[in-house]
Amino acid sequence: MQKGALVYEGKAKQLFTTDQLDVLYVQYKNSATAFNGEKKEEIDGKARLNNQITAVLFEKLHAKGIPSHFIEQLSETEQLVKKVDIIPLEVVVRNIAAGSLAKRLGFEEGTPLKRPLVEFYYKDDALGDPLLTDAHIALLELVTDSEKQTLEHLGREINTALLSIFDEIGVTLVDFKVEFGRTADGEILLADEISPDTCRLWDKETKQKLDKDVFRRNLGNLTDGYSIILSRLGGKSQ
Amino acid sequence: MQKGALVYEGKAKQLFTTDQLDVLYVQYKNSATAFNGEKKEEIDGKARLNNQITAVLFEKLHAKGIPSHFIEQLSETEQLVKKVDIIPLEVVVRNIAAGSLAKRLGFEEGTPLKRPLVEFYYKDDALGDPLLTDAHIALLELVTDSEKQTLEHLGREINTALLSIFDEIGVTLVDFKVEFGRTADGEILLADEISPDTCRLWDKETKQKLDKDVFRRNLGNLTDGYSIILSRLGGKSQ
Ligand SMILES: Nc1ncnc2c1ncn2[C@@H]1O[C@H](COP(=O)(O)OP(=O)(O)O)[C@@H](O)[C@H]1O
Ligand SMILES: Nc1ncnc2c1ncn2[C@@H]1O[C@H](COP(=O)(O)OP(=O)(O)O)[C@@H](O)[C@H]1O
Ligand SMILES: [Mg+2]
Ligand SMILES: [Mg+2]
Repeated sequence: MQKGALVYEGKAKQLFTTDQLDVLYVQYKNSATAFNGEKKEEIDGKARLNNQITAVLFEKLHAKGIPSHFIEQLSETEQLVKKVDIIPLEVVVRNIAAGSLAKRLGFEEGTPLKRPLVEFYYKDDALGDPLLTDAHIALLELVTDSEKQTLEHLGREINTALLSIFDEIGVTLVDFKVEFGRTADGEILLADEISPDTCRLWDKETKQKLDKDVFRRNLGNLTDGYSIILSRLGGKSQ
Repeated sequence: MQKGALVYEGKAKQLFTTDQLDVLYVQYKNSATAFNGEKKEEIDGKARLNNQITAVLFEKLHAKGIPSHFIEQLSETEQLVKKVDIIPLEVVVRNIAAGSLAKRLGFEEGTPLKRPLVEFYYKDDALGDPLLTDAHIALLELVTDSEKQTLEHLGREINTALLSIFDEIGVTLVDFKVEFGRTADGEILLADEISPDTCRLWDKETKQKLDKDVFRRNLGNLTDGYSIILSRLGGKSQ
């Protein structure tokens, strides 16, 4: 597969065309960003870790019946994916209160939720990715009612699958964010990435944070936790 | 009716017991506050204007079949109301994008919405009255699903009634916030106040702001607009 022109450069990845119209070449970057890009750093090894963790997770999800845009890993930092039109809704699923939810509703961080909570955020950097209610989603006409239900349903299914994947490696899945896209023939497909950049992951025994909160909160070396995740998932951590 | 002990002092009103258990004495204050109390000022005449505007509006709503806690106006700055247990959800209904909605979703202020939008905010000063999604409301167990539907339905009915009340006096109702409470026998009743403190009101012709945005945005003399509203509503403005 030929790597063509750069079509989009985001905060964490570059997308390139390939010689197939419906396939994109994804190059992970070493950039770490938080607070809508206000905090930014280059972190050696991050591209490699997130690319591989995402590849392993999308393969495991596929095995559990959850298809995604993932086609194959090409190198330590590159993968091929099906091109989709990204739906500008970030779907967040939470099992335990942390981060913005804990702050917003006054929950102590670490409080288990009675039932997984699904939230939708407007993927719009200029607006700071605001939380949306169902009424806002309808007003913005970003998706139909039935698509919104599909997104929520897929979010819950992915949560169930990821909970068991992480449970098996001694990790608590606190929450995560996923993005979905529409393929050329209108199918809704899980896209983007699933990595410690987009999940909160706590070691079950030690409660050590193995995710981007280490960067957000200056808690130490980011890649330590990411390497633990990759190696426990069975990827090669070096 | 005897004015008893102070039971609660809020940002805009004081509540006192009366010699009847289910009746409260409300004393409006001259304080103007915004941004969750960060901006604060004493404004002569505000208590008198908001007390009278609220009384007139609750009477007009009653005539249109929407009951509230309102019993009677006692003096320029005092009224009697039925005591309720306030539901800690602020119900916001919007006809035109303005304020936090315009900022949140990137609408230009003044953009008419296709359909009135209902939002729920958690009435909690310590948390800064955060916006809640349906899922948050269910998680917090603040109301049952059916109570939430009642609140939304009442919000829309009050909007329809207020739209016509303000239209008749040459005023555009942009948005408003209401609070509801449960009476001793479990009925849900419109409570608190409806005034230029809790509505956005624009003169239809001149577009002059006749509401608290004048205070929030330092646009001049707050009571000018409030006096216009009261006198057009048929209250005595002096
Ligand atoms: N399969 C796909 N097809 C098209 N775009 C995609 C696909 N998967 C992810 N994207 C988009 O690629 C962009 C690059 O990713 P990233 O660097 O994380 O960007 P961002 O800064 O917007 O989060 C994102 O906008 C993401 O939505
Ligand atoms: N009928 C009622 N019974 C009991 N409490 C009420 C009633 N109507 C309004 N309240 C409450 O009275 C309090 C005083 O009003 P206000 O000064 O506006 O307070 P706040 O600063 O909380 O907005 C508010 O908490 C409001 O919810
Ligand atoms: Mg991204
Ligand atoms: Mg109030």
